[in-house]
Amino acid sequence: MQNIIYFSIAAGIIALLYTALKSSWVTKQEVGTERMGRIADSIASGAMAFLKAEYKVLSIFVLVVAVILAVSANPETSSWMVAISFIVGAICSGLAGFIGMKVATKANVRTTNAARESLGKGLEVAFAGGSVMGLGVVGLGVLGLTTLFWIFSSLFGIDGPDAVNKVLAIVTGFSFGASSIALFARVGGGIYTKAADVGADLVGKVEAGIPEDHPLNPATIADNVGDNVGDVAGMGADLFESYVGSIIGTMVLGAAFMTTTTWVDNFDGLSAVLLPLVLAGTGILTSILGTFFVRVKEGGDPQKALNLGEFLSAGVMLVASYFLITWMLPETWTFNGIEYTSMGVFWATIFGLASGLLIGLVTEHYTGTGTKPVLSIVKQSVTGAATNIIAGLGVGMISTAIPIIIIAIAIIGAYSFAGLYGIAIAAVGMLANTGIQLAVDAYGPVSDNAGGIAEMAELPSEVRERTDKLDAVGNTTAAIGKGFAIGSAALTALALFAAFVTAYNATHEVNLPGIDVTAPSVMAALFVGAMLPFLFSALSMQAVGRAAMSMIEEVRRQFKDIPELRAALDVMNKNGEIEYAEWTDEDKATFDAADGKAEYEKCVAISTTASIREMVLPGLLAVIVPVLFGFVPGFISDDPTLGAQMLGGLLAGVTSAGVLMALFQSNAGGAWDNAKKMIEEGVTIDGVEYGKGSEPHKAGVVGDTVGDPFKDTSGPSLNILLKLMSVVALVIATMI
Amino acid sequence: MQNIIYFSIAAGIIALLYTALKSSWVTKQEVGTERMGRIADSIASGAMAFLKAEYKVLSIFVLVVAVILAVSANPETSSWMVAISFIVGAICSGLAGFIGMKVATKANVRTTNAARESLGKGLEVAFAGGSVMGLGVVGLGVLGLTTLFWIFSSLFGIDGPDAVNKVLAIVTGFSFGASSIALFARVGGGIYTKAADVGADLVGKVEAGIPEDHPLNPATIADNVGDNVGDVAGMGADLFESYVGSIIGTMVLGAAFMTTTTWVDNFDGLSAVLLPLVLAGTGILTSILGTFFVRVKEGGDPQKALNLGEFLSAGVMLVASYFLITWMLPETWTFNGIEYTSMGVFWATIFGLASGLLIGLVTEHYTGTGTKPVLSIVKQSVTGAATNIIAGLGVGMISTAIPIIIIAIAIIGAYSFAGLYGIAIAAVGMLANTGIQLAVDAYGPVSDNAGGIAEMAELPSEVRERTDKLDAVGNTTAAIGKGFAIGSAALTALALFAAFVTAYNATHEVNLPGIDVTAPSVMAALFVGAMLPFLFSALSMQAVGRAAMSMIEEVRRQFKDIPELRAALDVMNKNGEIEYAEWTDEDKATFDAADGKAEYEKCVAISTTASIREMVLPGLLAVIVPVLFGFVPGFISDDPTLGAQMLGGLLAGVTSAGVLMALFQSNAGGAWDNAKKMIEEGVTIDGVEYGKGSEPHKAGVVGDTVGDPFKDTSGPSLNILLKLMSVVALVIATMI
Repeated sequence: MQNIIYFSIAAGIIALLYTALKSSWVTKQEVGTERMGRIADSIASGAMAFLKAEYKVLSIFVLVVAVILAVSANPETSSWMVAISFIVGAICSGLAGFIGMKVATKANVRTTNAARESLGKGLEVAFAGGSVMGLGVVGLGVLGLTTLFWIFSSLFGIDGPDAVNKVLAIVTGFSFGASSIALFARVGGGIYTKAADVGADLVGKVEAGIPEDHPLNPATIADNVGDNVGDVAGMGADLFESYVGSIIGTMVLGAAFMTTTTWVDNFDGLSAVLLPLVLAGTGILTSILGTFFVRVKEGGDPQKALNLGEFLSAGVMLVASYFLITWMLPETWTFNGIEYTSMGVFWATIFGLASGLLIGLVTEHYTGTGTKPVLSIVKQSVTGAATNIIAGLGVGMISTAIPIIIIAIAIIGAYSFAGLYGIAIAAVGMLANTGIQLAVDAYGPVSDNAGGIAEMAELPSEVRERTDKLDAVGNTTAAIGKGFAIGSAALTALALFAAFVTAYNATHEVNLPGIDVTAPSVMAALFVGAMLPFLFSALSMQAVGRAAMSMIEEVRRQFKDIPELRAALDVMNKNGEIEYAEWTDEDKATFDAADGKAEYEKCVAISTTASIREMVLPGLLAVIVPVLFGFVPGFISDDPTLGAQMLGGLLAGVTSAGVLMALFQSNAGGAWDNAKKMIEEGVTIDGVEYGKGSEPHKAGVVGDTVGDPFKDTSGPSLNILLKLMSVVALVIATMI
Repeated sequence: MQNIIYFSIAAGIIALLYTALKSSWVTKQEVGTERMGRIADSIASGAMAFLKAEYKVLSIFVLVVAVILAVSANPETSSWMVAISFIVGAICSGLAGFIGMKVATKANVRTTNAARESLGKGLEVAFAGGSVMGLGVVGLGVLGLTTLFWIFSSLFGIDGPDAVNKVLAIVTGFSFGASSIALFARVGGGIYTKAADVGADLVGKVEAGIPEDHPLNPATIADNVGDNVGDVAGMGADLFESYVGSIIGTMVLGAAFMTTTTWVDNFDGLSAVLLPLVLAGTGILTSILGTFFVRVKEGGDPQKALNLGEFLSAGVMLVASYFLITWMLPETWTFNGIEYTSMGVFWATIFGLASGLLIGLVTEHYTGTGTKPVLSIVKQSVTGAATNIIAGLGVGMISTAIPIIIIAIAIIGAYSFAGLYGIAIAAVGMLANTGIQLAVDAYGPVSDNAGGIAEMAELPSEVRERTDKLDAVGNTTAAIGKGFAIGSAALTALALFAAFVTAYNATHEVNLPGIDVTAPSVMAALFVGAMLPFLFSALSMQAVGRAAMSMIEEVRRQFKDIPELRAALDVMNKNGEIEYAEWTDEDKATFDAADGKAEYEKCVAISTTASIREMVLPGLLAVIVPVLFGFVPGFISDDPTLGAQMLGGLLAGVTSAGVLMALFQSNAGGAWDNAKKMIEEGVTIDGVEYGKGSEPHKAGVVGDTVGDPFKDTSGPSLNILLKLMSVVALVIATMI
């Protein structure tokens, strides 16, 4: 059975080959005009400057943690090699972000150029850019994880549960490395993108009165860089860690089966350990298959193309899962007195898929354009910003109810069909198609950037219309992706939590007496755990506020200190609605003289420095708190398990409150965003028509601005926070 | 020992006598001018109309629940008499609200009238009004509870743990009754007050441009009624249930000690059961003592007077606690192999008092005028409403961190000194002084109302200045009161949670295997529990939105349909800043013709109907969900304890997330409120001065409006929600 590991390695290599091919194809496309090239270069170099600064800080963090891991490892149950896995995990995650961003910053301008030709061509380039990101992430994930497992199992063997547990304890470091990078990347990227966005909007659009993405705005390049570091690199690292975390969690729980003696035929528990790797490998192939179906003719519907690719891939994956599971696992086996079946495991994956899909649809209902909840925000905008905010907060809070019930049912359902292993495999089922899912997700910011470049390069408006059309599609698929992200985060965190208890009990003489919340110390830890998502959200929101403030000051300074900019702004405002072509020659000359005078790179530097500085505290918090809870009680109390118990309480708190705060913030942000868009497109309320510039629109803009850090900074970071803390617990489980 | 029960009964009677004396003293004070009397009558009858409508709905609820309790009671371990306790609890809670409101709506106008004379006289009347509420609540609580305990222990005996457990299982119904009424009163009152407030402000102040509390505004009476039904009756019912809940929880946990056989001298475990009743009785006496010190001469500082009364009372209580505890409990005893000491119990109460005090100071830090966090909101108001909102949300979220750590330390500290009993007695220690604490709290809305009446009756501005001065003091004491409310809610919920497990195990053959969150069903329940505070907050906020909308429409209609009002508004706006005395005679005539034309009672009716309708769903939710979790799993699973386990998980979730959401919302609301006030008083930011009417002020108003339902509706209701759900669990513990 263990030879099947080569299949996963092969699948990982295929993904990377595909990535290389697509990447070089994208690079070969035409860039367009000289001006387009110049703008794209600014964005690309800004993005790379951020990554460089970020990786510099992170490499210090990674080295320090690796040394601590190496010296504090318990030689009997773990090994200093966990530090190697940790470093490899961090590098793979960083690499996935790097590759994705590299190609995204090439694909953006090439999409703009392709959109000058046709919509279909634009889709092709943008989706190719996204699919490099998607397949890069899954390829590096599967290849890294499987290779490490292969190497360490060659060293320590995989005969019997002890050897496999030792190998897995080391490989877990890979997930820890990936999660740490993900958290920093998400938080740093989130702060970057929102600081630049707010700075560009508040001073550029509101104070100076120039349109979005206008070249006169010094923060406009930083804004476009932000889309890349936040939505491409940040999201890539995020999904990388979800993907890896769910696989590792399942492997650890699968290893528990190896202690059973009732295996039949030529099966042993190892197949349950390898199953998630094989499913992930298969998901790579079905994702690649799906990408071939994403194409559209001129006049066709890009949405349909994306849906076809994604659903086809999901359907094939489902069928393949059935055959793989029933082939790799025996029909029935018994563990701890409970009977398991391969069909039960398959049903658990169905529970995972169905719950992810349903959460996505519910998300769409609460945040989509034209739905009842979003319409309620639009209506409340008529009475001003305050009622708009109250309505949005209400929608965000109430939108948590159904997804939580779905998650609760999925937990109980997956567990009743296949135990803790079922919960873990449900998360793997949701994430098996990450390749194409992420391709669709990353396609969004590429087309967004393409539109920005079209604007800055002052291309004809039909190009911008085409890129807008590209940008607008994929909402449903994105919502479903969000549902999968949140659902899988909850299930993965639980799987890792269960894996933590399993790993602790496997390596300690005194078993944990459970994580009993009637014990006051556990309850106290649960309180602190539930508080962390609030603290974490506050820290990242305040960081956005501070970073945006620096950006605002810099943009104001440039408008004041650079005479050419000031003069150009003046003629622009003087001419108002008049087209550039009809300006006087003198005005044209003044305006053109400002070209290239805005000091974009200063704004880029401000966003970079601020976001790197601000990501450190929340990031460290997530790593240090579980370590404190795990170790400190051992010094105070006689109960050797107290630390592990309190750590368990902490995890329960952070997982429950974290999922809720993530849902609340993401959905409130999404709903505000679309409420504003609905007003911009024009709405009629109580017989009065409202549109851009109306009072309700101003209220809508306030809501959207509040929602931005919710949905792009603090909300998505929480998904990582709860998994990172579980992974930290799992890594230190053998050392407590 | 059990004769000491008569001391508590006597203390309860003394409190009610004090209430009656103070109440008749207040009634005897002069009302003032005819116009003042007319306005006060409108407020009083509006408040009574609300209470009448509310109690009509609640009596149906109480009767239905009482019947269900009576028929579903397990005759072996409980009794149908629990239904009687439930009804008595509901009636006492309702009565406390009724008495408080009755006297508050008398004291308001008499405070206005007294303030025409002097500040000291105003303080005397307002505080007398508040102290009727305060002593009424504790008197009814102690008297009701002790009397029920006395009656049922005469029926069933109190020899041995089984008899006491049976008595307590019945008496628990009292707490359930009090909690249900509290939840409905808090939610209903909160919706009422905010709907009226928003309606009066948005149409009256913003659209029509008339000052606050102006008699031309049809919603102004409803607004003043709202202060009474929300801040007086709502808060009274709230503290009544906290007070009763903490006492009951301690009694149930104290009863567990009766199973130990190591009692020395003439002690038995019963003294631990009676201790909370005796402490509460003593607290009544120290509270009354404290009220005698609240007096101020003209030119004196009302703040000092309030502080003197409160701190003196607290100090005496502390000393008395020491003697009572060491007298009632033996020096040491052993239970379940652990040694307990009377000094340990005393230290636990100190933990309770200290943590409540500290949480209060932290609350003050995050929400007080001029503090760094509030100043940060003020600064962010310069860039508009959006940044004001983001800053306020950030302050609210980060303000949860230290209080949660304090609560966690209090839990662990009280537990390590005196076990679960210690956690419960810590809550009792915090709440022993509720009498004077609530007197100070209720004094606030009375002076607020007094100011409103001064405005509506068009009294000289010095009267309004005096009432404003009265209203402004007591902020620190109010903040400490808030700290006690939240801290005690967390500890009481935990005590009730522990009492639930104790009661379940005492009445079932199979003990609970703990509430282990590694069990997926418990974790799923924990998720659902943590979701409820979000759902509950959303429902109450949306209810405020809907009710405010009806109010807005009604006020707009009156301005349109009543010609005298329209004409008066026109002359008022025409004359602008010009004083009334300098108007033309014609304008004066038009203005005076509008007097009494506004249909106040219609606005009152709208707020009443809307709030009663909207309180039903959230209220029922809180009662039905724990019942579902307790009973349904029993029908599906073979595990007889599964229902109780899942119910435990639900409680852990609702308690942790509930405390956090309560802190977040209350503090965000408080911080926004004071940020707005700071701007109104005038602030200088970056060298620019801002005041009333400036852009930052507008942003501040948006923040304050968003914060209103946070701090006055959803936030405070959550404290009750989590205790109510724990009480429901405790009541059904013997039936599951």
